[in-house]
Amino acid sequence: MDLESNKQTVLAFYEVGLNQKDFEAASKLIGNRYVQHNPRIADGIEGFAAFLGQLREDFPALRAEVKHIFADGDFVIAHVHGVRVPGQSGTAIVDIFRFDENGKIVEHWDVMQPIPETAENENGMF
Amino acid sequence: MDLESNKQTVLAFYEVGLNQKDFEAASKLIGNRYVQHNPRIADGIEGFAAFLGQLREDFPALRAEVKHIFADGDFVIAHVHGVRVPGQSGTAIVDIFRFDENGKIVEHWDVMQPIPETAENENGMF
Repeated sequence: MDLESNKQTVLAFYEVGLNQKDFEAASKLIGNRYVQHNPRIADGIEGFAAFLGQLREDFPALRAEVKHIFADGDFVIAHVHGVRVPGQSGTAIVDIFRFDENGKIVEHWDVMQPIPETAENENGMF
Repeated sequence: MDLESNKQTVLAFYEVGLNQKDFEAASKLIGNRYVQHNPRIADGIEGFAAFLGQLREDFPALRAEVKHIFADGDFVIAHVHGVRVPGQSGTAIVDIFRFDENGKIVEHWDVMQPIPETAENENGMF
């Protein structure tokens, strides 16, 4: 596994997928399957296509900004600030991607939490 | 950085901290500071002590089960199933811990999401 190359693939996936919402470009980074663990998205590449299509309609200006990125073995983990509508506080997200031996994404998990307006500390969620 | 040793420290931190709620034991794994990014917990080792004390009172049977664990550089990332009350669906959590050069935890971020009753796929959140 080339950990650095896998990280670059994930950064490209955010850019062409979440930010540009370009399914054709994003799908080139996905392998021969895409096992989906996000409970709101249908399984497989078709589920991902439908998800991106919905984002294009509902949140065309949605942006995902990667704050930290990590790799270990087959996995890349990204700590991400997602903002659906510019100016909103947005969402703290961790995405976990599993790679196949060809450097393609084949599985995805995530956890999402709205960023609250107030906090018990001054450190922010990132 | 000894990535494997840092992973073992995090696994011990869940066991003595979250599961046994033993502040004295957990604090031995923390360095000379503990920068807290969870917006509901006060900064520092005092914030962590108060958080564990609250858990002991409110959710004495709370259990955290580590599903995946990763390490990269100074960081350990854990994908965790948290169940506050036995039998509940619980919460999907990713914790990110930063280590100092002595193998002690010095910073913590997390993202938490309640596990929904129904999902668009059959894969579960882990």
